[in-house]
Amino acid sequence: MNHEELRRELHLLHLELPKNALVAWTSGNVSARTGEHMLIKPSGVTFEELTPEGMVLTDLNAQVLDGDLSPSSDTATHAYIYRHLPEVGGIVHTHSPYATAWAANAREIPCFLTAMADEFGGPIPCGNFALIGGEEIGAEVVRVLRGHRSPAIILQNHGVFTIGKTPRAALKAAVMAEDVARTAFLATQLGHPVPIAQADIDSLHDRYTNVYGQQKAGTGEKP
Amino acid sequence: MNHEELRRELHLLHLELPKNALVAWTSGNVSARTGEHMLIKPSGVTFEELTPEGMVLTDLNAQVLDGDLSPSSDTATHAYIYRHLPEVGGIVHTHSPYATAWAANAREIPCFLTAMADEFGGPIPCGNFALIGGEEIGAEVVRVLRGHRSPAIILQNHGVFTIGKTPRAALKAAVMAEDVARTAFLATQLGHPVPIAQADIDSLHDRYTNVYGQQKAGTGEKP
Amino acid sequence: MNHEELRRELHLLHLELPKNALVAWTSGNVSARTGEHMLIKPSGVTFEELTPEGMVLTDLNAQVLDGDLSPSSDTATHAYIYRHLPEVGGIVHTHSPYATAWAANAREIPCFLTAMADEFGGPIPCGNFALIGGEEIGAEVVRVLRGHRSPAIILQNHGVFTIGKTPRAALKAAVMAEDVARTAFLATQLGHPVPIAQADIDSLHDRYTNVYGQQKAGTGEKP
Amino acid sequence: MNHEELRRELHLLHLELPKNALVAWTSGNVSARTGEHMLIKPSGVTFEELTPEGMVLTDLNAQVLDGDLSPSSDTATHAYIYRHLPEVGGIVHTHSPYATAWAANAREIPCFLTAMADEFGGPIPCGNFALIGGEEIGAEVVRVLRGHRSPAIILQNHGVFTIGKTPRAALKAAVMAEDVARTAFLATQLGHPVPIAQADIDSLHDRYTNVYGQQKAGTGEKP
Repeated sequence: MNHEELRRELHLLHLELPKNALVAWTSGNVSARTGEHMLIKPSGVTFEELTPEGMVLTDLNAQVLDGDLSPSSDTATHAYIYRHLPEVGGIVHTHSPYATAWAANAREIPCFLTAMADEFGGPIPCGNFALIGGEEIGAEVVRVLRGHRSPAIILQNHGVFTIGKTPRAALKAAVMAEDVARTAFLATQLGHPVPIAQADIDSLHDRYTNVYGQQKAGTGEKP
Repeated sequence: MNHEELRRELHLLHLELPKNALVAWTSGNVSARTGEHMLIKPSGVTFEELTPEGMVLTDLNAQVLDGDLSPSSDTATHAYIYRHLPEVGGIVHTHSPYATAWAANAREIPCFLTAMADEFGGPIPCGNFALIGGEEIGAEVVRVLRGHRSPAIILQNHGVFTIGKTPRAALKAAVMAEDVARTAFLATQLGHPVPIAQADIDSLHDRYTNVYGQQKAGTGEKP
Repeated sequence: MNHEELRRELHLLHLELPKNALVAWTSGNVSARTGEHMLIKPSGVTFEELTPEGMVLTDLNAQVLDGDLSPSSDTATHAYIYRHLPEVGGIVHTHSPYATAWAANAREIPCFLTAMADEFGGPIPCGNFALIGGEEIGAEVVRVLRGHRSPAIILQNHGVFTIGKTPRAALKAAVMAEDVARTAFLATQLGHPVPIAQADIDSLHDRYTNVYGQQKAGTGEKP
Repeated sequence: MNHEELRRELHLLHLELPKNALVAWTSGNVSARTGEHMLIKPSGVTFEELTPEGMVLTDLNAQVLDGDLSPSSDTATHAYIYRHLPEVGGIVHTHSPYATAWAANAREIPCFLTAMADEFGGPIPCGNFALIGGEEIGAEVVRVLRGHRSPAIILQNHGVFTIGKTPRAALKAAVMAEDVARTAFLATQLGHPVPIAQADIDSLHDRYTNVYGQQKAGTGEKP
């Protein structure tokens, strides 16, 4: 994708956040790596007011290169992740309610669901508390997710970050993280959810990663 | 219905899955038996990208006969059910959250509601854990639902399968399964739900099966 | 309203049921008294397929007078209520989930909310279990609601009936019943909801009944 | 904004109430201060029937100056707040379910979330029970919110009031209040939510108040 296409894609992906009930008002953001730079949501703008042109271009030290609006207050976090995880092409951040409820308990989201074994390869880990604005959150995300199967992390008292090869893959992980966080919450309320055996989790994750979806010849990518 | 009509019907029924909040992202699928074959959702395609033409035609051993896309990774399960339950003309699979929360507890959904006695004739049974991809799930569905009043089963740690004479009937069962799973969940949280006497469940189910809806002369079908 | 206007009004009110998340699939219905007769939803028809012309005209013994479709399987209940409560001009029936969860516990919905004191004048009462199809449900609704402040009743293991001078007033009561049932549920889950003093409930209900809304000169009606 | 613009803005903001699931039927209202007067929703009118012209102009003693409809039954409350808190330009009132569930328990909404520290600077306080219609509610809102960091208050057994420099700011606070009330509810159900240290709450609130969003040169306003 060129810059214009990526801006349009990023705009469309932002609209998926309210559509999937992951955000309230202006919270939540998606970014995309583009070469040595990144594009990210402007700060404090509602999803209805957002435009492709409004996305802010920064370098990977969170310095604005192009754009009339200030970038998201989470820009330093996104930039830190791109600098330290070269395989990441897109990042999503939300305060989606069920996932954030687990985060407010400082508990990982336990793996009671085959859909969770598929997408996350086990529990969704919970990172430590970190203040917003600087690089502490980015450092915590990278510390936990580097080499981890899960493309999602919840951060204590805060919310969710997901990563992916593309912004669309990161968005999918954010949607699925809230979905499994909700079902795991409901299962916990019923009293005695049954864990899945580790060997079964491994088997499910392997099949999902290697078989599911439409294989695009020569790319290893899924749509 | 001819093939074209069935593809359009199947497309419309798939759109009911997100509309009724039964699915997240690309999860969930509907299939239809057509003679010795079946039509099913392609794997990993979002509901917005889905088209009537994109539905994949397979035989009842899950081998693709026609279609550019790979079929759902649940195709072997659907095929197994069609082979073993000749009265089934449509199948729906979801991970709808409330039903799946009961499944994560390996608990049948108890019958506290007249609407549940109507549609399911009692509790919705819970099948054992089975791995995805092969025929284990299909075998478990058939083992439990053969001769059972309920057109729905939940599978431990996984989700919901519903069957029907038509894909539309199976979809209705999937919608109602989530609806009663939610109310049963809420009733359980309040502390002391009152069971319905077996004789009353029988009476309700009999009336609903034989009186409710619009009888179409000569067909015994309901709209 | 003449018959045609009433059919259109009834059609519009039915569309409010799914819009307010009170129903799943074809469940739920609204009826209107018209002189010595009543109009009601046809049985087993989805809300999208419903038309003003499809509404079924019956007498107050539930005998069909006009219409190609069978009337709702709750017709005998509606007819019984109209025969015994002459002030009632409209009736709504749903299985809305939070109200029905209280009903599955055979518990009245307690009055923790000023909005509930306003609309219902206290708790929403719970009627005894009654089988569907005959007049038992109607008899239970009339037994409990005659002379009661509340325009809503929940029936054990079943769902909600609301009554009003007009079908629109009954619909409003059905929407508000689910709304307060949900908040009362959530309040109960938090542990220690505070009751409202009876004198305050009385004062709130009196003000709401006599002051709230737009008084239409000469009619005593509110819009 | 002139009067016409303010009426249109107020109309649009009212439509956000059902869109953000904060209200049922005709409950909930938004008002705007305009010079020595205020504009407010008419009483008992549905959100779909509402028009810019239908907004009622009153003085700050709740006396109608212009409008064919009666003003909201909460008009005296809004007027009292404008008279006593001169910095307030807009007020929102709802019975949004999760916030009201905390209010039914007479419990402040505890601060487990960085988003709550950001927007509310700590817990959302709970005011005492007060009857509707006179000035008791306004007096309780002013008593609690004067000098408080939080732009939101919940009132025992009743609902939510939020204030802001503009009606839009008050609406944002109402949306965020329900969002954090829900996540705090879910976190509490999971068993052991972790509080945020007071120094961290202070730091988050300070950053959010002074850095977040798009600073408009010379105004200190955020969009």
